[in-house]
Amino acid sequence: MKLNLILTGLALAACSTITMAQQENPDTAVFRRIRNAEMNSSQIPQIAHYLTDVSGPRLTNSPGYKRAADWAVATMKKWGLANTTLEPWGEFGKQWEINDFSISMTAPYSAQLRAYPVPWSANTNGMQRGSVVILTPQQSIDTTYLAGHAAEFKGKILLITGGPYNGEGNFKPTATRLADTSLANLKDSYLVSRKEIEGAFNYMAMFRKIDLILKKAGVLTLISGGRRNVNGTVFVQSQYGHKITDPETIPQVDISLEDAQKIKRLIASGQKVEIAINLQGTTSTSDTKGYNVIGEIPGTDPKLKAEVVMLGGHLDSWSGATGATDNAAGCIVMLEAARLLDSLGIKPKRTIRIALWGGEEQGLYGSYNYVKNHFIDAPTFTPKPEQGKVSAYFNLDNGTGKIRGIYAQGNTAAAAIFKEWFKPFHDLGATTVTMSNTGSTDHQSFDWAGIPGFQFVQDELDYETRTHHSNLDDYDHLSMPDLKQAAIIVASFVYQTSMRPTMLPRKPLKKEIFVFDGL
Amino acid sequence: MKLNLILTGLALAACSTITMAQQENPDTAVFRRIRNAEMNSSQIPQIAHYLTDVSGPRLTNSPGYKRAADWAVATMKKWGLANTTLEPWGEFGKQWEINDFSISMTAPYSAQLRAYPVPWSANTNGMQRGSVVILTPQQSIDTTYLAGHAAEFKGKILLITGGPYNGEGNFKPTATRLADTSLANLKDSYLVSRKEIEGAFNYMAMFRKIDLILKKAGVLTLISGGRRNVNGTVFVQSQYGHKITDPETIPQVDISLEDAQKIKRLIASGQKVEIAINLQGTTSTSDTKGYNVIGEIPGTDPKLKAEVVMLGGHLDSWSGATGATDNAAGCIVMLEAARLLDSLGIKPKRTIRIALWGGEEQGLYGSYNYVKNHFIDAPTFTPKPEQGKVSAYFNLDNGTGKIRGIYAQGNTAAAAIFKEWFKPFHDLGATTVTMSNTGSTDHQSFDWAGIPGFQFVQDELDYETRTHHSNLDDYDHLSMPDLKQAAIIVASFVYQTSMRPTMLPRKPLKKEIFVFDGL
Repeated sequence: MKLNLILTGLALAACSTITMAQQENPDTAVFRRIRNAEMNSSQIPQIAHYLTDVSGPRLTNSPGYKRAADWAVATMKKWGLANTTLEPWGEFGKQWEINDFSISMTAPYSAQLRAYPVPWSANTNGMQRGSVVILTPQQSIDTTYLAGHAAEFKGKILLITGGPYNGEGNFKPTATRLADTSLANLKDSYLVSRKEIEGAFNYMAMFRKIDLILKKAGVLTLISGGRRNVNGTVFVQSQYGHKITDPETIPQVDISLEDAQKIKRLIASGQKVEIAINLQGTTSTSDTKGYNVIGEIPGTDPKLKAEVVMLGGHLDSWSGATGATDNAAGCIVMLEAARLLDSLGIKPKRTIRIALWGGEEQGLYGSYNYVKNHFIDAPTFTPKPEQGKVSAYFNLDNGTGKIRGIYAQGNTAAAAIFKEWFKPFHDLGATTVTMSNTGSTDHQSFDWAGIPGFQFVQDELDYETRTHHSNLDDYDHLSMPDLKQAAIIVASFVYQTSMRPTMLPRKPLKKEIFVFDGL
Repeated sequence: MKLNLILTGLALAACSTITMAQQENPDTAVFRRIRNAEMNSSQIPQIAHYLTDVSGPRLTNSPGYKRAADWAVATMKKWGLANTTLEPWGEFGKQWEINDFSISMTAPYSAQLRAYPVPWSANTNGMQRGSVVILTPQQSIDTTYLAGHAAEFKGKILLITGGPYNGEGNFKPTATRLADTSLANLKDSYLVSRKEIEGAFNYMAMFRKIDLILKKAGVLTLISGGRRNVNGTVFVQSQYGHKITDPETIPQVDISLEDAQKIKRLIASGQKVEIAINLQGTTSTSDTKGYNVIGEIPGTDPKLKAEVVMLGGHLDSWSGATGATDNAAGCIVMLEAARLLDSLGIKPKRTIRIALWGGEEQGLYGSYNYVKNHFIDAPTFTPKPEQGKVSAYFNLDNGTGKIRGIYAQGNTAAAAIFKEWFKPFHDLGATTVTMSNTGSTDHQSFDWAGIPGFQFVQDELDYETRTHHSNLDDYDHLSMPDLKQAAIIVASFVYQTSMRPTMLPRKPLKKEIFVFDGL
């Protein structure tokens, strides 16, 4: 899930012009078949293994992403899905992966450092050793300060760290589930205003400037020790660097708070600290296109099979780990839901289409471009014929926690329908239909295009505290029981959407600039 | 604090033959001076910085231990303490420190591994690459199995890991404080029976055998991925290897559960996993003696100054981090208490002696040998004259949590006294005198020798869950407010012990074999 760079959702107003076309009668017999199949012959651990362990980090366009995407296409084909393909969505930028990395403190004594290369970082010139200069977070974004001190940075390693921080025990659990009171009061979440996004992009532009200053100054490496990088968790993501037009950055690394603060204190008490670093990645521009993974279960009703129900999640991850909860989890659930529906031979009336997106972490690129390619002409904001044929898009991208409800995104009529559909799953803890909006992930692309796009409400578990964009986001942090529950519900909702006499009700289309356009 | 290799404490029976010699009237005016001084001009952060950040890991006899010990001696001298010295206690064994270490997965793709060298590990022969063979925990201790499969291990990296483990969210806080009900029901803790210790030593002997089998088989490195090494915490300690008579081990590494399980799953699904490792430490036998740090505030009463009150904690640590909570914390508190008492010029009647022990983690060596050198002739179990002159020994070694009480170790008469002494500190949360015993640390050496030896009850914070013997045991996991509280209480108890008309009451001396003798 992308955070902090996302458009405010569409209008919250209820869609009073649309009413429920029929009484909802979910096919609970099929729901039970789905549930039994998942509980008795789940493939979730295997799918998880291939998307995380076997693929490795799935940074957009990286070899790891390609491994995962190729595996997904081949596996869906093996299951018997139709039209399985890697579909290019447009220009993304540079491929990057790390080949060799080591970092340690070499003076005043030898010590390991918990640190990770920033994606799309430049390489060091082989193994480099340098003494360390500390920058406060404020200094690190003050171009005047940096330009004025450039002479002191030559051949140095710069370490950004704030503090001092107070060592405090961890008296709160890192994992939580939503209490009933929380479910009853779900607010808008992960929404960022256009203005905030512009601010973030201005920051990126500033980072580019800073990078040029530091490169010119002859800095060896820039290391960041953020305050959340504590207790063994290090968050690793880049601000920029993937675009063909992005100049090469200086070598960049994210480090644990404990290490950063130790080095800061050592320097403050007069010790000379030296770090040795060797960062060797491969950057390639042999294929700069971005790709989504697509597969279908064709509809069987002659009148309705041209209509489509979509389900998906983003396949790309950051590079500090194998992106298990962000967002292999969502892809695992969607693949398993597709597999279940296919394997049960339930013959959907409408076509079911799964999409695993690339480029989400850099700006919802995969889904937004898919929507532009298929559903709406962006410059004129004119819907294409396909736009009228998509009943709904269901997304999952809030970690490994089970489904507790759904964000109706202000779609009152759809909300009433979902309330009925959740009834058979109350015993699994999924009860809540909130009118609130949520953002920062791919259903927003559909919402923007006037297609009902929904993200499920999930239990948090350790998502925000430990795994989201961190070095710990590996397979063992997946909760298999939670993912199974989610697959059951997603498969059932998708099935029901495919069988319903009419498509799901829509909100009125509202012309709006999409979040990243023109930035 | 040493765990799992410790003798059962002395008899639990109350000491009915000894009664309180006088009404206890703690000098609350001095207690208040101590408290004000600590709250207004604490040196704890500085002491902590030098013992952790500046010294580095303080593995017994390592250069890091020497740096910390030398700093402590010099600093106590600077403060004005008397008889500050590094006192050898006998033969310990090899000095070892790590100079260069890197490890990564190189196939099926390049990935960092969270792993740490086991102390006293042999070096690899430069950078080594090998494919991985998985051993279950059971196989790893089955000498018949290992000998039978030796041919398959040549040039391989062996990885011990169990599981599969279920990824579960972390719904319990890792840090806790003792609730009133817990304080009211403190049980014996950290006590291990002689039989259990013998079992542990038999394990060590077995590990030596296994090591020989694996060395002969040509194993490159042995990697252990224990089930507690999860969520960014990796526990790092050795079973043996420091003794001059210990043969050189094979290269050994501790790894995170997430990495270990990933590799195990990759191999299970048919991937060939290769690891590259370079482990270069320095082992030296230039000085095989062990050392304790000693300093004194001389008593001022002509009749009582030959009597001694001791306070201490162990200075040595494991090597995965800088041993902040195990047990820089205890040393910081004891040094600060000594500094406070000295700086306040309170003229103790009895001599106050601080001791920072070496070799605790390998078997309470520093304190036990100190006790044998000064207080008791072990072969005959005959007390030496000095034994009768030590009023008490106060120890701190349960992490960074504040003091909540004291273990009276079955000394009823002392318990009654401590109850009075705690009264001025009830507002700081220190209230409890338990008759229970605690073990696994240096007060046991004194207890064994018939000298009242006490360990304080402390809040747990993240000790057992995160920092104790782990890669996270660094400065930022110290709770400064807790350490200040502890320094106030320790200084006050030590002061009161030094001023009391008579020495603290004793339990009867009971002849017993000390835990590690003959093992």
